[in-house]
Amino acid sequence: MKDNKKLVEAITPIDQDFAQWYTDICLKAELVDYSSVKGCVVLRPYGYAIWENIQKLLDARFKATGHENVAMPIFIPESLLQKEKDHVEGFAPEVAWVTMGGSEELEDRLCVRPTSETLFCDHFAHVLHSWRDLPMKYNQWCSVVRWEKTTRPFLRSREFWWQEGHTIHETAQEAQDETLQMLNIYADFCEQELNIPVLKGRKTDKEKFAGAEATYSIEAMMYDGKALQSGTSHYFGDGFSRAFGVQFTGRDNQLQYPFQTSWGVSTRLVGAIIMTHGDDEGLILPPAVAPYQVVIVPVAAHKPGVTEAARELAARLGKFCRVKLDESDNTPGWKFAQWEMKGVPLRLEIGPKDIEKGQCVLVRRTDREKLFTPLEDLEQVIPAQLVEVSRQLYARAQKNRAERTFSAKTMDEVMELANTRSGYIKTMWCGDLACEEKMKEVAGLSSRCIPFEQEVIGDVCPCCGKPAKTMVVWGKAY
Amino acid sequence: MKDNKKLVEAITPIDQDFAQWYTDICLKAELVDYSSVKGCVVLRPYGYAIWENIQKLLDARFKATGHENVAMPIFIPESLLQKEKDHVEGFAPEVAWVTMGGSEELEDRLCVRPTSETLFCDHFAHVLHSWRDLPMKYNQWCSVVRWEKTTRPFLRSREFWWQEGHTIHETAQEAQDETLQMLNIYADFCEQELNIPVLKGRKTDKEKFAGAEATYSIEAMMYDGKALQSGTSHYFGDGFSRAFGVQFTGRDNQLQYPFQTSWGVSTRLVGAIIMTHGDDEGLILPPAVAPYQVVIVPVAAHKPGVTEAARELAARLGKFCRVKLDESDNTPGWKFAQWEMKGVPLRLEIGPKDIEKGQCVLVRRTDREKLFTPLEDLEQVIPAQLVEVSRQLYARAQKNRAERTFSAKTMDEVMELANTRSGYIKTMWCGDLACEEKMKEVAGLSSRCIPFEQEVIGDVCPCCGKPAKTMVVWGKAY
Repeated sequence: MKDNKKLVEAITPIDQDFAQWYTDICLKAELVDYSSVKGCVVLRPYGYAIWENIQKLLDARFKATGHENVAMPIFIPESLLQKEKDHVEGFAPEVAWVTMGGSEELEDRLCVRPTSETLFCDHFAHVLHSWRDLPMKYNQWCSVVRWEKTTRPFLRSREFWWQEGHTIHETAQEAQDETLQMLNIYADFCEQELNIPVLKGRKTDKEKFAGAEATYSIEAMMYDGKALQSGTSHYFGDGFSRAFGVQFTGRDNQLQYPFQTSWGVSTRLVGAIIMTHGDDEGLILPPAVAPYQVVIVPVAAHKPGVTEAARELAARLGKFCRVKLDESDNTPGWKFAQWEMKGVPLRLEIGPKDIEKGQCVLVRRTDREKLFTPLEDLEQVIPAQLVEVSRQLYARAQKNRAERTFSAKTMDEVMELANTRSGYIKTMWCGDLACEEKMKEVAGLSSRCIPFEQEVIGDVCPCCGKPAKTMVVWGKAY
Repeated sequence: MKDNKKLVEAITPIDQDFAQWYTDICLKAELVDYSSVKGCVVLRPYGYAIWENIQKLLDARFKATGHENVAMPIFIPESLLQKEKDHVEGFAPEVAWVTMGGSEELEDRLCVRPTSETLFCDHFAHVLHSWRDLPMKYNQWCSVVRWEKTTRPFLRSREFWWQEGHTIHETAQEAQDETLQMLNIYADFCEQELNIPVLKGRKTDKEKFAGAEATYSIEAMMYDGKALQSGTSHYFGDGFSRAFGVQFTGRDNQLQYPFQTSWGVSTRLVGAIIMTHGDDEGLILPPAVAPYQVVIVPVAAHKPGVTEAARELAARLGKFCRVKLDESDNTPGWKFAQWEMKGVPLRLEIGPKDIEKGQCVLVRRTDREKLFTPLEDLEQVIPAQLVEVSRQLYARAQKNRAERTFSAKTMDEVMELANTRSGYIKTMWCGDLACEEKMKEVAGLSSRCIPFEQEVIGDVCPCCGKPAKTMVVWGKAY
């Protein structure tokens, strides 16, 4: 006989082993399952539902800014991938190659798309004719494949789910505006809906996307002080257009090359949610994307009227929030622990005494504050408490980031911080690749971004002593 | 200089060359673009929006019947695919094989999923423990790859987009009920939302899914009388469970194998819409899935007040239907033709005289009936007219099907019909594979299904003269 599965199992304490805590959450909160395909995971219903909510909210933002969804082929012929030199160099080493279709050997190998710039360019070349067709602002939701060596659920896997926006524009200015508009949409989404504060900035040349003129990113700080690149937006100039012969007849009746962007976020955002907000009890989900915003746990459900009252509440709450009524045979204590593990923002307890008093108990997942609430007030109190949970999550993450953000003027200061603390280190930088590489080599730090909000920490690059051009934020990254 | 694209081009008359007419519609209504990946298409915004609407409506039906979305890996290791004998025989010849990841040769080749029964079974084996975990009712939206030789947009391509439901149940009865429930949901969806009448029935053993105990399908008849299998639902018994070692502890504390189903519809439904409803002017879209349900065409837009009135109407209509205001520089006549080609169910014309009279002109795409409508009535008239367009589409398709459905008692009658008419031919059948193969060989007909609604056409199989077991519907299929 198979053992019955234990629903609520101990998870590793967060401060004891953060990596193991993360894996425990992914598996025990039933977000993912490992599959028989090395480096690929299964997104289970609870994990997929978070991603589905992310998709819904982002898709609405994309459409509100004039983007249209399309679907491109899953494969890229090797000959097509090779058209843009930097791009193929960046991606070819990490793709999966289809070499046989049925029993037929392919002449031109196909890679499973790692990203779709090449396919979009190929399509733009077919459908773009006149300046009147511009801008073309497309997006697709799909999965992509990159042959990673070391994988972790949501953070890095051979297949991941994402959206990739691809747009072409008449002028460079328009394309640059689009690039920043999408970065701002990502940042706003992360802060407002996922309650994750993010740093916006430009990537150094070393860290930019293969084939891009400029890459911008939003960087989030995890509970342990490490950074997670959570979204990127790229400006391509007309490099891809020229490589793929994408042209249009301009207002001056001359053939011109359009200017291009691409931008993406992925299921990595689910990893960001886990590692930003979780605690020793498990996951804590931002209300905007939680599969269930409220879980109703009946107490003493065998007593007359309790089950009926709980069901009535579930139907009533279902009109204005995502609600789950747990009618399983488990004890209330078991249910409390299980739904805390799964990160449901609010718990509603209702028992015979509550019913007598015309009230229920609401418990916030963030601080476990108990709120005795008259039943007739739930339409007001629940939305307000969901807002409060969001506020607490954001404030806590912001506090963690503030406490883990440091400045350094000299390499000694950098080394001291890198060896004793985990977080962001801000320094000035001369702009040379050599110094960026040295920071990696001696301090184990990579540049996260050149933040839009610059500060003056000093005059010189701490690495080489030459005059500084910008301030950079460094960190250890997932 | 590149030629400016012609927006409204002539399409091949539908009765002259149906295949060419179909291709013209796919390209000129901007549903798809051919890609550089042989046998794969790009779904352009207008084509993808139809699929997106189909997804939204079906997904709501799946969730309302207790199904949850998940995401499975894109790859299947060859060793996993081989676990169910019939299944691998059916699919292995038509899959794309990944043999290299990065620069590393793979020991166990991976196929790009042609369907995901094997992956779901692998997952079920991990997460199923007790009868309390059952049923598990999962669905995923994704694309799959089958290495087809001859391809046509939406109907047959090397990659296509679909949903695949996979469920496991405690008892055979429950799984059989699920199989039929999903078939009925497909049928109801096709009839109510796509306005396509369908035939429900069971597939013969020859035509059933590789590894299934029983396959059920909905069959739609296209304008030219050919059949299109538009959705399938499979009952697997416990065959896959046994092959993959999926087990649970039953109520009797004994290890048991669950009973399984799978079911799917694909972007093929877009092909069904085109070929069921289209006409010489182009596409006609069922209102439930049309990207735009109403297009507003201002007439004499340069006259004072017209543009303002049209914009006001667009904002007002946007509250209760999907509306497009065409403010381009093209002439009204050009716009009429363009939006007829694109199949928008209702056109709203508004010009200076209309504004004076406080009215507008509504034109149904189906019969071009002009309805002079007081502006204040639009909230009532538009929804009613969208229902009327749906009704007309369904009635027309049903009439076509009725006129193209024939019965035959003898092979002479079968041959006569097959040679002179295009449509369904109903005959009795003894149940032998030999007779089914003979129908293909001599009359070019394949069995579409054994309809649930049986009729008695005679006593004997027209092929062999032996006693008949059931009535079968035969046809030529896409």
